[in-house]
Amino acid sequence: MNKSALRFVAGNGLLDRRAFLKSGYGLSLAAAIGLSPAGRVLAQGEPPMPAWMTSLGGADVEYGSPSAHERQVLRQLQPSTAQTAGFSIWHSPLQHQRGSITPSGLHFAVHHNGIPAIDPERHQLMIHGLVERPLRFDLERLIRYPMVSRIQFLECAGNTAANALSPTARNADCQALFGQLSGAEWTGVPLSYLLREAGVKAEARWVICEGADGGSHSRSLPLTKLMDDAIIAFYQNGERLRPSQGYPLRLFVPGWEGNVSVKWLHRLEVSDSPVFSKDESGLYTRILSDGEILAFGFPMEVKSVITHPSGQQQLPELKGFYEVSGLAWSGLGRIAKVEVSADNGHSWAPAQLHAPVLDKALTRFSIPWQWTGAATTLLSRATDALGNTQPSRSEWRSRYAAHSFNHYNAIQAWRVSSSGEVENVYA
Amino acid sequence: MNKSALRFVAGNGLLDRRAFLKSGYGLSLAAAIGLSPAGRVLAQGEPPMPAWMTSLGGADVEYGSPSAHERQVLRQLQPSTAQTAGFSIWHSPLQHQRGSITPSGLHFAVHHNGIPAIDPERHQLMIHGLVERPLRFDLERLIRYPMVSRIQFLECAGNTAANALSPTARNADCQALFGQLSGAEWTGVPLSYLLREAGVKAEARWVICEGADGGSHSRSLPLTKLMDDAIIAFYQNGERLRPSQGYPLRLFVPGWEGNVSVKWLHRLEVSDSPVFSKDESGLYTRILSDGEILAFGFPMEVKSVITHPSGQQQLPELKGFYEVSGLAWSGLGRIAKVEVSADNGHSWAPAQLHAPVLDKALTRFSIPWQWTGAATTLLSRATDALGNTQPSRSEWRSRYAAHSFNHYNAIQAWRVSSSGEVENVYA
Repeated sequence: MNKSALRFVAGNGLLDRRAFLKSGYGLSLAAAIGLSPAGRVLAQGEPPMPAWMTSLGGADVEYGSPSAHERQVLRQLQPSTAQTAGFSIWHSPLQHQRGSITPSGLHFAVHHNGIPAIDPERHQLMIHGLVERPLRFDLERLIRYPMVSRIQFLECAGNTAANALSPTARNADCQALFGQLSGAEWTGVPLSYLLREAGVKAEARWVICEGADGGSHSRSLPLTKLMDDAIIAFYQNGERLRPSQGYPLRLFVPGWEGNVSVKWLHRLEVSDSPVFSKDESGLYTRILSDGEILAFGFPMEVKSVITHPSGQQQLPELKGFYEVSGLAWSGLGRIAKVEVSADNGHSWAPAQLHAPVLDKALTRFSIPWQWTGAATTLLSRATDALGNTQPSRSEWRSRYAAHSFNHYNAIQAWRVSSSGEVENVYA
Repeated sequence: MNKSALRFVAGNGLLDRRAFLKSGYGLSLAAAIGLSPAGRVLAQGEPPMPAWMTSLGGADVEYGSPSAHERQVLRQLQPSTAQTAGFSIWHSPLQHQRGSITPSGLHFAVHHNGIPAIDPERHQLMIHGLVERPLRFDLERLIRYPMVSRIQFLECAGNTAANALSPTARNADCQALFGQLSGAEWTGVPLSYLLREAGVKAEARWVICEGADGGSHSRSLPLTKLMDDAIIAFYQNGERLRPSQGYPLRLFVPGWEGNVSVKWLHRLEVSDSPVFSKDESGLYTRILSDGEILAFGFPMEVKSVITHPSGQQQLPELKGFYEVSGLAWSGLGRIAKVEVSADNGHSWAPAQLHAPVLDKALTRFSIPWQWTGAATTLLSRATDALGNTQPSRSEWRSRYAAHSFNHYNAIQAWRVSSSGEVENVYA
């Protein structure tokens, strides 16, 4: 290791990225090799060429899949939901992902009533209530409206509930703890176009948004937000929505708790008040520690998690270089800053934010780390463009009534033991 | 239609986007509906609720797939390659995609020697030649280096060859003509890190990059470019590369013709000169019209295509509103401008570029269009941040020798007949 590369920016081995990467450093991760005099042939003692280098390869297919060697990278069914007919929660494998796009096949999903098998030729979207012209669209016509695309995150209100609820930190991986979170490019028709065409009446304030699933999942949403940036989404990551994500169409409400982006959307009723559907008065209302009820608190607060290294991973070498990498997001705007601590919060250094840093989108952060080998705790703390930052777990807990778990966004702590095991802890 | 919305910005119906979208316009695409007095129930004569609205839906799975109703959206094997052992070209279905991300399962691919079935535990990357320290990496170590992510396009040098070669315009769809083009988020280790660690010698100018496929696909690339922005890519759209894209690792060289982003990369030999491999002296050398040989002309030139509407589509109504939408890209930088003509080039209007507009990335553009119903020809013309713009077909043809087809980037023309058929033509 070239020592000039080791310009420390915070305690316990966090490194200055520029000095580190621009130097002629060595991570000591490669094996030096001896070459024969010809310089191009393989070294002595080298195993023979593998079969795939000495024969023609196999055929491709019309729709590709991951390698058979990556079969362990799957969505995970949250065990508590497995036995409940119709209700299921599927987590994204964040610890296996890099970048900020979640492949559509691994996007998290929460289903209240299972996945309806909708025939797109029979599906319609109706807009009615406090409008001048009640309208109904079939899919073939709706899809001809002007579209926009945005890369944005979706997070379930209940993501990371275990850390909110469990008195002691549950030993679990990043997928189990944070996996109700994904990022994708969503494409569709701005809802404002359709509402303007229907002619919203002056007294309108809310829109009741209902899905075509068996249980008619429905939420009341403020008209202002729907006119601002909500879309009727048809495409995710360049192809039509998958059934799990609302095929043939869903509402997508940027930055707000996932369940209001109503899947399989078929009805929008413009109203002067919310409807207090079972879905909003029950599951998604919060109670503050002073007993106040927080209904219709939609935006997901600023949050971050280190995905590499993270819970239940095993560091392959017991000291030396690691890149600390993770995701940050805020339902209120862009991520402005992510700080990382490698000494349980005694000192912090700013991580690099990887471009593009987009509004209400997953933002990848990273910082190089020279691990001494001693046990320590890694933390990340995100701040958004509005200046909101993450609370500690105790600060978060003191804000909400006992047994609260929605919108948990406290600073996450991963303990790294001297034997290289990474574990979820409360800092 | 609210006539105030129709502020024209170019001939034959191209509309001002802001005036169009901000007005209380009606696209006349919805059916007005009569509601019962209660206001919430379905209209009289409405068919009964479909079964999916009155019962619990189905279960989800660990790795999701597109809807069964979208089974026609597939990559397409270029027919001329179907019978050639090992060599195949698969086209992306651009006319079915929206936004700027291509789903990994639909990413285009050109295989010179089929897909090798590589065991990632046995795969290594070697760096040798004009370096101080020849190095060999196994995958487990290489993947611990710091990574970057970038959303960028990949295009085959031979994309749109039919329009270069065929004396009369071939009646084909956007996928067949332009489908050797895709966009994705690529994540990996900057090659500069590894070359610095190996210690490149002063006389080094080139790097010979070789794949582990049976035919050892290899290209010589200038050291400057590889030090600038090339990466060893491990991830595409958040998950590990698929076999078709080079699993377990590939070179990714932003903006340059696709074949130099060597898949299944296993060897980098630093050199003072190119090696003139079969792959570079044969397929990918160009001949100019004056007989000059253009070898090592790597960057893909600025280009665009309207995907909606495009070849062999049938417009569902024979006049009225359509969004004209397409993709633009340049291997030399960001897209600065896309102009659209709805009157075969007599007049042009700037299209909207959808954010984020990224360096060497697919950029979605769109413009609203009020079609009169008369036959016409749609064109798009992109300009990049360096001021490069697309030539006409005759300008392109006059630059290259007869039978040239690589790097074809002329302005594309789609003829719209009065019966709503869209056809590839030469403008």
